[in-house]
Amino acid sequence: MAHSNHEILQLFESALAQMNTPEEPELLYSPIIYSMSGGGKRLRPVLLLITLEAFGGNIDEAMPAAMAVEIFHNFTLLHDDIMDNADVRRGKPSVYAKWGGNVALLSGDAMLITAYKHLNRISASVLPRVMNIFSEMALEVCEGQQYDMDFESMEKVSVVDYMQMIERKTSALLSGSAMIGATMAGASDDDVKKIYRFATELGLAFQLQDDVLDSYGDESLGKKIGGDILEGKQTFLMVQAMSRADAAQREVLRTTHLAEELTNEQKIAKVKALYDALDVKHIAEQQIELRFERALNILDTLSIDSERVAPLVEFARNLMGRKK
Amino acid sequence: MAHSNHEILQLFESALAQMNTPEEPELLYSPIIYSMSGGGKRLRPVLLLITLEAFGGNIDEAMPAAMAVEIFHNFTLLHDDIMDNADVRRGKPSVYAKWGGNVALLSGDAMLITAYKHLNRISASVLPRVMNIFSEMALEVCEGQQYDMDFESMEKVSVVDYMQMIERKTSALLSGSAMIGATMAGASDDDVKKIYRFATELGLAFQLQDDVLDSYGDESLGKKIGGDILEGKQTFLMVQAMSRADAAQREVLRTTHLAEELTNEQKIAKVKALYDALDVKHIAEQQIELRFERALNILDTLSIDSERVAPLVEFARNLMGRKK
Repeated sequence: MAHSNHEILQLFESALAQMNTPEEPELLYSPIIYSMSGGGKRLRPVLLLITLEAFGGNIDEAMPAAMAVEIFHNFTLLHDDIMDNADVRRGKPSVYAKWGGNVALLSGDAMLITAYKHLNRISASVLPRVMNIFSEMALEVCEGQQYDMDFESMEKVSVVDYMQMIERKTSALLSGSAMIGATMAGASDDDVKKIYRFATELGLAFQLQDDVLDSYGDESLGKKIGGDILEGKQTFLMVQAMSRADAAQREVLRTTHLAEELTNEQKIAKVKALYDALDVKHIAEQQIELRFERALNILDTLSIDSERVAPLVEFARNLMGRKK
Repeated sequence: MAHSNHEILQLFESALAQMNTPEEPELLYSPIIYSMSGGGKRLRPVLLLITLEAFGGNIDEAMPAAMAVEIFHNFTLLHDDIMDNADVRRGKPSVYAKWGGNVALLSGDAMLITAYKHLNRISASVLPRVMNIFSEMALEVCEGQQYDMDFESMEKVSVVDYMQMIERKTSALLSGSAMIGATMAGASDDDVKKIYRFATELGLAFQLQDDVLDSYGDESLGKKIGGDILEGKQTFLMVQAMSRADAAQREVLRTTHLAEELTNEQKIAKVKALYDALDVKHIAEQQIELRFERALNILDTLSIDSERVAPLVEFARNLMGRKK
């Protein structure tokens, strides 16, 4: 009897609520509890469990793996916030801001180990394969983070390099989670590969949409617009614009966020005017459509019945904020 | 055919030399190669493999686990150097000093994942048990590091708390390595427990000796004496002295390293004069003897022949720098 996506989220939250964390040393373990109970959409464990059920797997058996990917995800946030000097996470002080860099560092290490500890609770018969997917995924996320930091000091990043970075930094954890779900349910190698491609394309569409919304989102929804522009961050819009700009425009794109004589609003407006002139929002939207459609098309080729595929389609649409 | 301890070290170095590390992103992987090829005594993998052979295990099969514990050890050094703001490691610039905190952080993460990746190369039949020992050991090391940092801001640390800290920070990795070796060789639960106790006691003796040598070592051997005293670090000598001191002596022990009117030599001499008055060097040496003898005595109770135990005795003596 398959569960709805919402039921799966609830089952995961219940399992998470029962997670046992030692009390001492307090500065090692309190930040873990704080981080894990700080909300978040639980995208990765939910995708893992939805994929698992689509292929007929048992949720209870896979719950430790779902815990592992969520703990891993939160571990990356603890360490990313140190590297990015980020004080706020999900509307609350980050572990880094609340306890300092050393605590965020060491608690993060303990989280990564704890993720593997949970992984070790799955059946020994699938452990080596699942652990292989998990470790490869985890290394890809580190690689993505390193490329992202490398890009900060680069004048021009190619669109291809940018796409490869977000494939690691954003897609890898989604595709790894989905592959673990499929693998644990005994899906065929062919289906596991397709599930990988589905989640990879979906992750790219999701990240590109995130890039677009940071500059063109709806401020009435409470989202602050233009953060990426003010940071001079390499995003799909920026790397695409740089690739299409002439020398004068490139100079504007590279330097506007540093201009001391401009207000933040003026900086954002100036860069967005160039984005518009270079048509990059439109190009991004085309890419998002292309990736999202590819993701859905791959699902049609799975060897399972279409009613079993439906929850994956629903997950993908929800992720992208779409009705259909 | 058992190997000598020296041959085991050579076999391990050969395996390490064949370790495959990706080239890109360079800032993620170069520090790993730098760190792993920076020497060190390879104590933990060698202890793992010696223990394995003592119980009749096959070195080739256990080599990935030996790699895992050595990579894990080096991961802790990368992250400890960030937390301790340490510029030098094994006489060379630390990764932290050479590349900065963010690189040391992220490369360290990749090393921890890589350690598990190597662990996953051992036989699936022992993987869950070995992975369990590995993860528990790794968490204990994190706990030890956190307690060590907690102690920095505490006026008085009890001797018991100090011993529990070094049992985690120093012994856990030795005892975990030895347990993995015994487990992979198919040793009985009873023997695995004894091996755990052997390596725990040995680790404590080793750490206490390290504490003593930092204040009383032979400067003609090129070792700088008194570093712990100048840092105001909690060591066995300090916590033992604090527990035996009167109020006036305690004040001296707590504040001397901060005294601006004293030279470093004067600070060291002043604290050591108190150590001598309170007889703490002697107490430490008694503890070292006690722990070391306990470790050797436990070895006598193993179910294996004494010639198989001999390499473990030799390892213990070498570690403590003793002929017999």
